[in-house]
Amino acid sequence: MTYEQLAEEIRRKKSFLCIGLDSDPSRIPAHLHHDPDPVFSFNKAIIDATHDLCVAYKPNIAFYEALGPQGWKTLEKTLDYIPNSHFTIADAKRGDIGNTAKKYAQAFFESMDFDAITVAPYMGHDSVIPFLEFSDKWVILLALTSNAGSTDFQFFSNGPTLYQRVLEKSMEWGENLMYVVGATHPDRLADIRAITPNHFLLVPGVGAQGGSLQAVIENGRSADGTGLLINSSRGIIYAGSEIDFVDKARQSAQKLQLEMAHFL
Amino acid sequence: MTYEQLAEEIRRKKSFLCIGLDSDPSRIPAHLHHDPDPVFSFNKAIIDATHDLCVAYKPNIAFYEALGPQGWKTLEKTLDYIPNSHFTIADAKRGDIGNTAKKYAQAFFESMDFDAITVAPYMGHDSVIPFLEFSDKWVILLALTSNAGSTDFQFFSNGPTLYQRVLEKSMEWGENLMYVVGATHPDRLADIRAITPNHFLLVPGVGAQGGSLQAVIENGRSADGTGLLINSSRGIIYAGSEIDFVDKARQSAQKLQLEMAHFL
Repeated sequence: MTYEQLAEEIRRKKSFLCIGLDSDPSRIPAHLHHDPDPVFSFNKAIIDATHDLCVAYKPNIAFYEALGPQGWKTLEKTLDYIPNSHFTIADAKRGDIGNTAKKYAQAFFESMDFDAITVAPYMGHDSVIPFLEFSDKWVILLALTSNAGSTDFQFFSNGPTLYQRVLEKSMEWGENLMYVVGATHPDRLADIRAITPNHFLLVPGVGAQGGSLQAVIENGRSADGTGLLINSSRGIIYAGSEIDFVDKARQSAQKLQLEMAHFL
Repeated sequence: MTYEQLAEEIRRKKSFLCIGLDSDPSRIPAHLHHDPDPVFSFNKAIIDATHDLCVAYKPNIAFYEALGPQGWKTLEKTLDYIPNSHFTIADAKRGDIGNTAKKYAQAFFESMDFDAITVAPYMGHDSVIPFLEFSDKWVILLALTSNAGSTDFQFFSNGPTLYQRVLEKSMEWGENLMYVVGATHPDRLADIRAITPNHFLLVPGVGAQGGSLQAVIENGRSADGTGLLINSSRGIIYAGSEIDFVDKARQSAQKLQLEMAHFL
C-alpha cells in the first residue's frame, strides 16, 4: 500500500484507527474455547465487527509466538482474513545484522504478506536496510515509545536525544519509513513533526496507557492532515469478556473513530 | 544453568566456544534435501560433530521463523537434541513493552526451554525485566554489537556512550544478565571490563566478521578467567558444503577450540 492510498483510506473512513490484535487465549471469552482455533475465531469476530471503523490491523507477534507452531498458523490465517483494503502491521520489533534481518524480512514480507513491520533501531543501518529493500513494504522504526522504560535510553545525551538522532539518521536509509511515537509523550510530537513533517507515525498508548487522543492528533498530524495511525489494542479487543464481546469491541472502536472524525 | 556451572564447563572443555545455528536451507548440503526435515538433519549432524568442543549453541531465530510453522517445529526439535550439558541461547533480539515481553519470555523459556535469550535494550527496563523474572534463565542484552551499523547509535553522545549507559543502567535491573559485545571492537573490551568485571559477554564477530580471537580473550575475560562465550556461526557450520561438511565443521570448531585452550 502506498502513502497516498493509506492517506486516502484515512480521509474516506474519517479514521486514523489501527487495532492491535494482542490476542491472548487466557483473555478471550470462554465460549470461544470450544472452537478448533479459539484465537483465530476471536480475531475473525473482532475484524468482522470493526473493519469499517479502522484503516489498519496490527497483530502483536509475541502473542502468536508464545503458542508455538500453532500460533504461527493462527497468525497466517488472521493475516489472510484481514481485508485487502487494510494496512497490515507485524508488530515484531525485530533488529539484527544484515543476513539475519534479511531472514526476518522474508518471514514477514514473503512467507507472510504484511505491509509493514516494526523494527528496533539499536543495531543501526545494516539492521534496517534489508527490510527497506522491499520497495512496496514499510519499516516502522521505534523512535520514542510509549512505555515507562522509554526514558531510560531514548532521552539519553546532553544535546539532541537518542530518539531525535534515530529520526534524523534513519531518514538517510530509504523512503518507506514510518516511526513509532508513543501517545504518552504528546509534548514531544510537535518537535518530532519539526524533524519529519510528512512521515507516518504509528502511535500506541492511547487508551490503556493513558495518552490523549486530541493532543496526539493536534500535535502529530502530518502536513496534509493525515500521517497518523493511532493504535488501540486492549481497550478495544477486551472491551467485553462475555458473549457480547463483539458489540463491546465495536462500541469501543466507534467511540475512538467518532472522536477522530472531528479532525478529518 | 548457573554462572559457576557454565564457568566450570569452560574450564573443563578448555573452550569458550558457542556455535551459532544460522541454518539456511539454501546453504545446507544437497544430499540432506531428501530428508523429511533437512534443517534438523543438518543441525543434528553439526551438534554430533562439535558438542565436545563447545559449551553453548545459539540458534538464530530468524532462520527458523523464515520457514513458517515448520521452522518453529525444527527449532523445537533442535533445542531438544542439544545435550543438557550445553548452554542454549535463543538469538532472538526481542524487546517490547511489559505485557508483550512477558509473552516472548513464555515463548522461549516456557513453551521452549532455552537457558538464555538475546534482548534489545532500546525500550528500557520494563522491556527487559519480564525476562529476568525467570530466575534460572539469562538475559543477554545488546550492548556493543559487531556489525557496521553499531556505530550509528551505540557510540552516540558527547560523554559516556549509549552502550556504556546501557551497561550501567541495566545492572540495576537484575542479576542474571550477560551482554553482547562484538569482537570487532577489541579496543572497547577493556573499557567494558572496567564497568563490568564479572558478567558473561557473548562475543560474535570472530571469523566471518574479522575480529581477533586473541584480542577478545586477553581484553575480555572476566576476573576469574572465564566470562566469555565466543560465537562462530557461518565459519563453522558452512566450512564445508558437500558430503564432508561434518568433518569440515569439526575441523573448523577444533581450530578455534585449540586456540582458546592456550588461555584456559
